[in-house]
Amino acid sequence: MRTSYAVGVDVGGTRIAAGLVERKGRVIKDAKRLTPKTGPFAVIDAIIDLVDEVQTGTHSSEIAGVGIGIPGQIDFLRQSVEFCTNLPLAGVDVRSLVMSRAKQEVTVDNDGHLAALGEARYGAAKGARDFLMITVGTGVGGGMFIGGEPYRGSRGLGGELGHTVVDLHGPPCPCGGTGHLEAYLGRPAIAARGREAAETYKGREILNAAGGSIDGVTAEAVLFAAKAGDPVAREILLECGEVLGRALVSFVNIFNPRLVCIGGGIGEAADFMVERAAAVMQSEALAGRRDVSVVQAVLGNDAGILGAAAMAFDEHDSREGLSR
Amino acid sequence: MRTSYAVGVDVGGTRIAAGLVERKGRVIKDAKRLTPKTGPFAVIDAIIDLVDEVQTGTHSSEIAGVGIGIPGQIDFLRQSVEFCTNLPLAGVDVRSLVMSRAKQEVTVDNDGHLAALGEARYGAAKGARDFLMITVGTGVGGGMFIGGEPYRGSRGLGGELGHTVVDLHGPPCPCGGTGHLEAYLGRPAIAARGREAAETYKGREILNAAGGSIDGVTAEAVLFAAKAGDPVAREILLECGEVLGRALVSFVNIFNPRLVCIGGGIGEAADFMVERAAAVMQSEALAGRRDVSVVQAVLGNDAGILGAAAMAFDEHDSREGLSR
Repeated sequence: MRTSYAVGVDVGGTRIAAGLVERKGRVIKDAKRLTPKTGPFAVIDAIIDLVDEVQTGTHSSEIAGVGIGIPGQIDFLRQSVEFCTNLPLAGVDVRSLVMSRAKQEVTVDNDGHLAALGEARYGAAKGARDFLMITVGTGVGGGMFIGGEPYRGSRGLGGELGHTVVDLHGPPCPCGGTGHLEAYLGRPAIAARGREAAETYKGREILNAAGGSIDGVTAEAVLFAAKAGDPVAREILLECGEVLGRALVSFVNIFNPRLVCIGGGIGEAADFMVERAAAVMQSEALAGRRDVSVVQAVLGNDAGILGAAAMAFDEHDSREGLSR
Repeated sequence: MRTSYAVGVDVGGTRIAAGLVERKGRVIKDAKRLTPKTGPFAVIDAIIDLVDEVQTGTHSSEIAGVGIGIPGQIDFLRQSVEFCTNLPLAGVDVRSLVMSRAKQEVTVDNDGHLAALGEARYGAAKGARDFLMITVGTGVGGGMFIGGEPYRGSRGLGGELGHTVVDLHGPPCPCGGTGHLEAYLGRPAIAARGREAAETYKGREILNAAGGSIDGVTAEAVLFAAKAGDPVAREILLECGEVLGRALVSFVNIFNPRLVCIGGGIGEAADFMVERAAAVMQSEALAGRRDVSVVQAVLGNDAGILGAAAMAFDEHDSREGLSR
């Protein structure tokens, strides 16, 4: 049976959001709450409550299933959460726990993969068969579409584009590595650059944007000052664009995609950073690969919900033998 | 009809080799000659002569076709040579020219992809469905197998693992980029490090290996001295292994493969370089991805011929609707 709706859940370190989504990608109902900090079962309970809340009033036979995006490393085939740094979900059987109470089929996947799926189905990468998604937020994540399908690697752990070495002697990365892309672009790295600038007079606009407190300087404060025209803040983000562009050289030479989509809280907001990255990539990528379009994601906060719902529709349709 | 043989041709900057190959991967007849330097048609003539030579005595109906590996960027779908730095074949319709005279179906592809296909079918990566091949020779090339199939990118130009940025401020790469893997590992880079060492007393073993001439120091001289136990030469190659290992961190985090196969003239010979690379990768790759095996290629000089023949068998069988 061709169902009309799916539930998408976006589990973040700060908040959990769920939405009831139509096949065409309209979120017709949504709900969110802060992520409980009291252990795995509180998180599972919150997910179940939100799923219940958005599906109330819709007959369960009309719902294709529930998709859940988790900011961790998911073995997609086993549907297990292998590693999860920001949430206590590693080793927790999220799928079965939610399934037994929500009375719906449940599928879990990495949130970066789902952001890519969301943009591919409903957003800036609509119709693209070979594209890369890079999410620049607190972490730097990614997803790859190859031949129209998400590519997950041999154990479902592929796509960690943020954890590629861009500098042999670069700064430490939160993952423990050195000189990874995330060590330059993640919110903590941008905030640190912002704080450094805010300690001197030249960084006064950044300090203002942070309400006058150096410790209060966040990546968003740098972004705000840059958007307001402050050249110091702008330069910080342009340098991030430079590094992102150098990483894009690698990705484009490896994948030869048609499209690269930059999303995430920082990536979706910092248009000049993305423009600089595209220009750097186009000047250094091997000839014949430079015609790739670099675009910004468009789904914003809904990307996670929409991607998770798209996965739930896909899983439902493949269970029922329906073609997409 | 299930044919018994295919012809594989390996076109290199220095020599062209062809072989008649059985389905099981035995080269039953081969021939080679130096690559003509007098223009594209001399190269095409040499290819045709070699194909004729190896197929003489075998009935053409027993031959699945001819596969040709070219060290350039091939648009696989169009079967066109887009870029070719070491040979004058860019824009030359190699496939049609050889086909019209050899009276066999002809397929062309990038030589790195074919080395991967050869190892996957007959060599160190036999049976692997998700693996990466990195060839370390004069250039640094690569090939990727995803789900049991070679991955070519949206225009057949994917897989250039040698042209990924490993250091934002690294040395210039022959391709025009900066800090690419090839700028550290290719024969010219190793030879330059060897020459630098040979200018002082500590590099005397390298100088000896080069017959006493600093200008005569090649990557092979460094390799020879290292294998004979010279610590200076060994250190040069271990540092290459270090850089290769850092690049493997990126590739393993992106692809989550089961296997990485290191081939090419340098990669297949320098076992300690490969061991160092594997150790570096295993210490820095994200948890859960470290169980990847790093192996050396085994097909040696025949890799190109065998990969090209494997492609000819595959193309034949898919034309005839035979499963592999």
